[in-house]
Amino acid sequence: MSGSGPSRRFVSAADLGLLTDLYELTMLQAYRACDMQARASFSLHFRQLPAHRRMMLACGQQHAAHLVTGLRFPGSAIDDLSRIGMFQDDFLRWLEDFRFTGDIVAVPEGTPVFPHEPLLEVTAPVAEAQLLETLLMNVVHLETVLASKALRLVLAARGRPLMDFGMRRMHGIDAAVHGVRAFRVAGIAQTSNVLGGLAFGLPVGGTMAHSFIQAHGNEREAFKAYADLYPETTLLVDTFDTIEGVDKVIALRRELGERFRVGAIRLDSGDLAALAGEARRRLDSAGLEDVKIVASGGLDEHAIARLVGGDAPIDAFGVGTSLGTSADSPSLDLVYKLTSYDGSPRVKDSPGKEIYPGEKQVYRFRDGSGRCTHDEVTLRDERRNADALLQPIVRAGEPLHVETLDPGVAAAWARRELGCLPAELRRLDDGDDGYDVRISDAVVNLRRAALAGRR
Amino acid sequence: MSGSGPSRRFVSAADLGLLTDLYELTMLQAYRACDMQARASFSLHFRQLPAHRRMMLACGQQHAAHLVTGLRFPGSAIDDLSRIGMFQDDFLRWLEDFRFTGDIVAVPEGTPVFPHEPLLEVTAPVAEAQLLETLLMNVVHLETVLASKALRLVLAARGRPLMDFGMRRMHGIDAAVHGVRAFRVAGIAQTSNVLGGLAFGLPVGGTMAHSFIQAHGNEREAFKAYADLYPETTLLVDTFDTIEGVDKVIALRRELGERFRVGAIRLDSGDLAALAGEARRRLDSAGLEDVKIVASGGLDEHAIARLVGGDAPIDAFGVGTSLGTSADSPSLDLVYKLTSYDGSPRVKDSPGKEIYPGEKQVYRFRDGSGRCTHDEVTLRDERRNADALLQPIVRAGEPLHVETLDPGVAAAWARRELGCLPAELRRLDDGDDGYDVRISDAVVNLRRAALAGRR
Repeated sequence: MSGSGPSRRFVSAADLGLLTDLYELTMLQAYRACDMQARASFSLHFRQLPAHRRMMLACGQQHAAHLVTGLRFPGSAIDDLSRIGMFQDDFLRWLEDFRFTGDIVAVPEGTPVFPHEPLLEVTAPVAEAQLLETLLMNVVHLETVLASKALRLVLAARGRPLMDFGMRRMHGIDAAVHGVRAFRVAGIAQTSNVLGGLAFGLPVGGTMAHSFIQAHGNEREAFKAYADLYPETTLLVDTFDTIEGVDKVIALRRELGERFRVGAIRLDSGDLAALAGEARRRLDSAGLEDVKIVASGGLDEHAIARLVGGDAPIDAFGVGTSLGTSADSPSLDLVYKLTSYDGSPRVKDSPGKEIYPGEKQVYRFRDGSGRCTHDEVTLRDERRNADALLQPIVRAGEPLHVETLDPGVAAAWARRELGCLPAELRRLDDGDDGYDVRISDAVVNLRRAALAGRR
Repeated sequence: MSGSGPSRRFVSAADLGLLTDLYELTMLQAYRACDMQARASFSLHFRQLPAHRRMMLACGQQHAAHLVTGLRFPGSAIDDLSRIGMFQDDFLRWLEDFRFTGDIVAVPEGTPVFPHEPLLEVTAPVAEAQLLETLLMNVVHLETVLASKALRLVLAARGRPLMDFGMRRMHGIDAAVHGVRAFRVAGIAQTSNVLGGLAFGLPVGGTMAHSFIQAHGNEREAFKAYADLYPETTLLVDTFDTIEGVDKVIALRRELGERFRVGAIRLDSGDLAALAGEARRRLDSAGLEDVKIVASGGLDEHAIARLVGGDAPIDAFGVGTSLGTSADSPSLDLVYKLTSYDGSPRVKDSPGKEIYPGEKQVYRFRDGSGRCTHDEVTLRDERRNADALLQPIVRAGEPLHVETLDPGVAAAWARRELGCLPAELRRLDDGDDGYDVRISDAVVNLRRAALAGRR
């Protein structure tokens, strides 16, 4: 942690080992003190769907796995840890040489997943596997929560493009930048976020703010100035009176003649359906059939579904806060649980927080036409005539298939899988007609035996 | 943006200029093209309280202001922007020399704030002030939302200490690290987050995870190993049967005799009030009156208030997801709006999104005993016999009072101010008996005149 002090921190790769809950490190020291070096398996999964979700779109797990393989404790991190006063010198020296040497399997990013299905499993010496917990969870939770929300907006828009305007109210810089990756996986078409868009290959776009018009004092001048510089721009028409704003765009067309190439207008307040309808009529009457209408302003998937369902003449939507914070369901009860140690199954029995033991596989069954019928969570070595979703992505500490870190790969896979799932999963209302996920007899029996053996 | 590619990005100071919505940059280029160089003022405020909030605790504004004074566009950022294809060479060359030269005023961090009160105002050449929008909002929004949620938990706990366990499900690394700063301002006592705690001076603490007990296979061995290494530790007792777990702690006392110094047990599931009561009785009967009881597991302010109100013998609470994501209200309608340009007031008239023009001051009135009676939002040059909350923090691009970036200063101020506000604001239930915030006649008249003048 270089540069401790009052100002804002930029987290770097040198800080990776400190991006953790303290207990991961104290347990690590304790595993060493107990000489517990056997291999353990941990499963990253959720026990129930959050409110208002019929599925989650798994995202971030390959990203997170790639990150943790680079986890080291440089001298600056060791110095910081020594300040806490709980770590012995020989442990800190051991940490200096730490690197992850284990294996990770995961479902492909972009896979729709359901309760009890591991998104990812880690198998490694217990201390190593334990240490990854907080960081892995933070990364996978963020991208999965945001991709799952984005998917709902994409489904609501039924093919009309969506633009991410969420950066200003997303939870910090990291969420904003890496959220763009999740949005791309889910099918968002464009982002206003410069760094996020450039980093993860989503087209960067934007329009204009009310302040630009306010500073000019009148819309006509502001529109003309913007269109001069950005001929195919989108003009924001609701600063004072939306329909008057539309008329000023039409007046600009008369003024510029053939030089007029404005691409769209944006509505950001009021009754969007009514205003879009009136704007469309006026634009069409003026021969501006090619000028599109973009709507924004506090939209969520339900508002978009209503507008699309009512055939509002809106060509694209800008979505901000509801998307960027997953406002109706900002978290997922993602957990990272020990399921085996030294070859024997491990369980826990806390009420409502049961664990299925053992290393697992998730099989997705399809019918003759390719439609998904159900999933089955089995032990890793069970075989089924179905698609095995958990595949190796890290072996002996080395990342495999780095090319699949590209969010474009996950986006294509997500689109394909979504098309194969039962149609009711793509509904936006709440409902309990969930997907059929079975737990294999072998898993159930292993849990029963492990609990009995403990007693 | 160094190192574009598939892997996770670490954002650095060199990226600051790219942490923005594209339109801030396109408007910047347009202001230059229009030769609009006059000074503008922008106000950062919210128009209404979010659901389930009676006040917001302003946080992050000095932090954000300090950050934006360091905003530059190094060569790497210029190269990235040129890839977007919308920026002219002379503009990019101008950006290379960009630095903020304006003034910023803000209410002290830790101030309880209400709708229409500026948390911060920027006055600078319009292009500079505009450019800060996205980054300022992102930083202030994060810390204000998280501090305001943390405050509710602190109020619910009525003096019993709270520990932040939220890192794993907070929205990304930046939210987790900088959230700790907001938590400290609001009065959270400890964090499990190693980097966040070290960076912002909140004590770092933690207990143990279920996995540690599962790996050992039985609680007795796991408890003994942990207590050997960390004598004053907290032992997690609910992995299998909570009361049996408590009995094993008592057995450990018999085994260790005077060497037993375990500080606390932690309950993480089940009926916490009943389990805490039974655990307390058993511990006390065994002479372990000094062993404290910590509760965690999906707690929010309402659950804590019920436990505290019912006199559950719980000494401290661990809070995770509800705190870390501000789950019941994950966003605030924070806006950054142009209020004057070149000395003249500016407004907008979109339905529900009105702006009060002019540079402002917020006065907080107190009665003879120091109790806050009401606030008044005035023009900056109006004088009142009351505390002026907006104070300079950046002058001509230079940060002032850097010592107040210390979250300890804001925490002390927050405690003091909260004690002076009407008691009903500290209630946890929803209610519309909000605080009395008046808008001065001069502000109202200026808005009326500005709207009339535009027509």
